[in-house]
Parts: sequence; structure tokens; C-alpha cells
Amino acid sequence: MMLLGRGLDARDNQTRQIQDAVSNVEKHFGELCQIFAGYVRKTARLRDKADLLVNEIYAYAATETPNLKVGLKNFADEFSRLQDYRQAEVDRLEAKVVEPLKCYGTIVKLKRDDLKATLTAKHREAKQLSQLEKTRQRNPSDLHIIYQAENELHRATLETTRTTRHLEETIDNFEKKKIKDIKNIFSEFITIEMLFHGKALEIYTAAYQNIQNIDENEDLEVFRSSLYPPDYQSRLDIVRANSKSPLQRTGSSKSSLRTVQISHRMLRKDEEEEDEEDEDEVEEDEEDESGATKEVR
Amino acid sequence: MMLLGRGLDARDNQTRQIQDAVSNVEKHFGELCQIFAGYVRKTARLRDKADLLVNEIYAYAATETPNLKVGLKNFADEFSRLQDYRQAEVDRLEAKVVEPLKCYGTIVKLKRDDLKATLTAKHREAKQLSQLEKTRQRNPSDLHIIYQAENELHRATLETTRTTRHLEETIDNFEKKKIKDIKNIFSEFITIEMLFHGKALEIYTAAYQNIQNIDENEDLEVFRSSLYPPDYQSRLDIVRANSKSPLQRTGSSKSSLRTVQISHRMLRKDEEEEDEEDEDEVEEDEEDESGATKEVR
Repeated sequence: MMLLGRGLDARDNQTRQIQDAVSNVEKHFGELCQIFAGYVRKTARLRDKADLLVNEIYAYAATETPNLKVGLKNFADEFSRLQDYRQAEVDRLEAKVVEPLKCYGTIVKLKRDDLKATLTAKHREAKQLSQLEKTRQRNPSDLHIIYQAENELHRATLETTRTTRHLEETIDNFEKKKIKDIKNIFSEFITIEMLFHGKALEIYTAAYQNIQNIDENEDLEVFRSSLYPPDYQSRLDIVRANSKSPLQRTGSSKSSLRTVQISHRMLRKDEEEEDEEDEDEVEEDEEDESGATKEVR
Repeated sequence: MMLLGRGLDARDNQTRQIQDAVSNVEKHFGELCQIFAGYVRKTARLRDKADLLVNEIYAYAATETPNLKVGLKNFADEFSRLQDYRQAEVDRLEAKVVEPLKCYGTIVKLKRDDLKATLTAKHREAKQLSQLEKTRQRNPSDLHIIYQAENELHRATLETTRTTRHLEETIDNFEKKKIKDIKNIFSEFITIEMLFHGKALEIYTAAYQNIQNIDENEDLEVFRSSLYPPDYQSRLDIVRANSKSPLQRTGSSKSSLRTVQISHRMLRKDEEEEDEEDEDEVEEDEEDESGATKEVR
């Protein structure tokens, strides 16, 4: 650290700059990779919830009156189709955004190897230079040893030259590829997202009609007639015919039917037990309900 | 449970049907509420990840060459704007889909109260009927007691009629409201989702241009000139002029400059230590890298 203060010159700045550039890519591509992977994961979790929603809508639709049943089923079909596109979105983002960023783990490792080779060569060269100067000082007349040391230095210099040239080429390609990849990765991200959003608009347009087409009144009639079935009514007619004071059938036919039903009930006795059973059920259900309400809140 | 086999007649079917209808809504609206709430939560988690992405893109852009810097920053601006719309989506879904479903917790509870009141009244009426018959058998001549029992039964019957009528009206409104609410809730869901998807398409269209406009070559030149600054080059020229055998400047000018730089280095000695420092840094960074790579995978 203290060495930084000594005024490194340009070539050391250069090495440091290359190191910094590689470290910066390592750091930020690593971060981007992780966050994009998280984004993809959350998209997959959203699809999971949507799949649950599809299943629940099917389950609910199956219990409903005809129009609601068909409308909800059709909506669930469309919504399920949208989840297939969301799955495609997830797969594409994984392949075209996360994977290319992940590759930079290996790419950066190779650049670090190149950097290390250059630094090792420089280190060896400096050692040989120091060796040569020592030799010259200690054995100024031994030309053979000096020649050998010069030879060693020459070889070390060639190795430094080779590794440095390789590093420079590689770092230029690295930078070129990096800018190109960033442009590609973000373009792919946007394209993949747009494809999904476009499909979503298309599918929801169809799904909206399915919901709008649900005929509320028709379903309400079905519900009413299921509560007051014809055979029940015909039996009521018999009761009514036998009744001394036939109950007036005014405004709400249901209400007056219900009154007849009660008079009818008074003729039977053994149903007391059934009512008790009903009450038990009500209590049980109420417990269930309070549980469900808690979960909902 | 055994009572089911005994052939309940229509009026019990009706009560049971109302109970089933209420239980069914309780079950499925509860499920829908929970899953929609989950869907909204996952959408909020996706927004969180997108917010992280925005911050990381800003952080990375700040370290980059001018074109990449501006392009990425503009993209992050747009992407951040989209997250505001996603937040609006989350708030709207919460208010227009989850809340109305949640209200059914209370609505169902009220219906269960109505059901319970009806069942209690029926139960009491049946008891009074049984009481009256016992009284008639035991005290067939005590007209006063019989009259009292008949009176009690009459009051119980009126109460049954009242609660049953109320239940019937309430259950009709409940069913009407339910169909209407389901249509509304799903229509709101679709509309809110479409609003977001539409905005997404609009915003991504602008964001795409920001990425496409990044000038790769200009940035590459900036990178190159930062690695080989002019003052460094001018000093190299001096070295080159003093050199006995000037190195040929072929294809890659950078590589040959680098060679000169190495010759130059041979004139200095104290830089050995600096290289050692560099090597240490490389090793440290490599450890960091392997850590980062693990996280990515």
C-alpha cells in the first residue's frame, strides 16, 4: 500500500488499470448475474402462484352455476395459457441473460491468468536484471558468467514481451466483447420482457370477454330454482290443498312457500334430532371459518 | 352423517343447500383471497428485485466508459419508472381484488348467523310441538295447559317463519352479490394487469433505444486511450529516440509500445518490490473471484 505513494509511472498504472477493469467487470457482472437470476426466480414464483390460481379457479368454477362455471373456466384457460408464456419468459431470461453473465466467471478467471503470467514474467525479468548487475559488480572480469547472466535476462525480457503482448491483445478483446455482450444482454432482456407483455395484453383481452359474458340473471334463476325444486313445489301443492287455511301467496313466493313448509314440518316429530345434527354442523363450520379468516388476514 | 341416509325431504335439502352454498363461498373465496394475496406478494418481490437491479445498473454505469454509462443510466431510469407502475399494480390488486375477497370473511360470518338463527328457531318450534303432544297425551282434559302449549308453539312457529324469511331474502341477496362481485373482482384483476402490461410495452420500447444507441467503437477508443495516455506515449518517444535499435512498430502499436516499455523498465531496479505487491493483489483478487463465482452458480 505504501508503494502507491511513491509515484508509480504510466506502465504500472496500465497494469493496475487492466487489473481494475477486470475486477470491476468481475464485481458488477457478478452482481448483475445474481440480481437477474433473482428476478428470474421471482418471475418463476409468480408463475407458481398463477398456476395455483388457475387450479383454484377450476375447482371453484366446478361448484358454480352454469354461466359463472363457463366464464371462470374460460378465464382460467386463458390465464393458464399466459403462464406458459411466463414459463417461456423464465427459460429465455435464464438462457439469454443469466447464462451469458454467468460465463463472465470463467472469462474473468482467464484474464486473471493472463495478468498473473505477465506479472510473473516481469518479476522474473527484474530479478535477472538485478542478478546481472550483481554479477558485473562481483566478477567484472568473468565475461563468461556475465554473458550467461545477460542471456538469462534476454530470455526473461522476451517472455515479458510475449506475455505482455498477449495480455494487451486479450484485454482489448475482453473490453470489446464486454461492451457487445452488455448491449446484447440488455437488448435480449428487453425483447424477452416485451414478448411476454405483448402476449399478456392479447390474452387478457380475450379473458376479459369471458368474464363480461357471464350472465348474472340467468345464474341467479338457476340458483333459485335449485333451492326450490319442482318436486318440492308439487308436494307443497298437496300440502296446500289439504290445508284448512291456505296461506296467501303474495309478493315473495319463496317466503310464503317457506311458511307452508314450516306448517308441514309441524306434522312430523322425529326431525328434532336432525336439527340438532344441523346445529352441530353449523358450529363445526364456524370453527373452520374463524381459522380461514385468520389465514386470510 | 347417518341421518343423510334416512331421506331428508326438500325443506331440509334447502337448508343444507344454503349451508353448502355459504360453506362453498367461504372455502373458495378464502382460497382465492389467499392465492391472489400470494400473487400480489410475489409481484411485490419481483419489484424488489427490479429495484435492486436498478441500483446495481446505476452503480455499474458509474464505472463505465461514457456511452455505456449514459445508455445504462437511461435504461435504469426507464426500468425504475416501470417499477413505479408495478407498485401501482400491487396497490391496485390489493385494493380491488384481495380486499373485496377478504370482506367475504365477514359476509360469510353474517350469513352463518342468519343460518344459525333459523336453525335455532326450527329446533325450538319442534320442541314446542313435541311439548304440545306430550301435554295433550298426559292432560287431555286440562284445556288451559293445552292452550298455553299451543300458544308457545304458535310463537315458535312465527319466529321460525320470520328467521326463515330473513334467511331466504338474505341468501338471495348473497348469491346476487356474489356473482356480481366475482365478475367485478376478475374484471378489475384483468384491467389492472393490462394497465401494467401496456405501460411495460411503452417503457421497454424507449428503454430498447437507450441500449441500442450505445456506441461501442467510441467507448472502445476511450478505453484504449485511458490505457495508453498521451503523456506516457510522449515519454516512450524519448526512450525510443535514445534506443540503439528502435523496435519496429508493426500491426499492433500497443504491443510494440509495450516492448519499449519493458526495455525502459530494465533501467530501473526498485520496481521489483512493486511487482511483488502486484502479485499479492492478484492472489487476493483470485480468492475473491472464486467466492463470487460460487455465489453465481
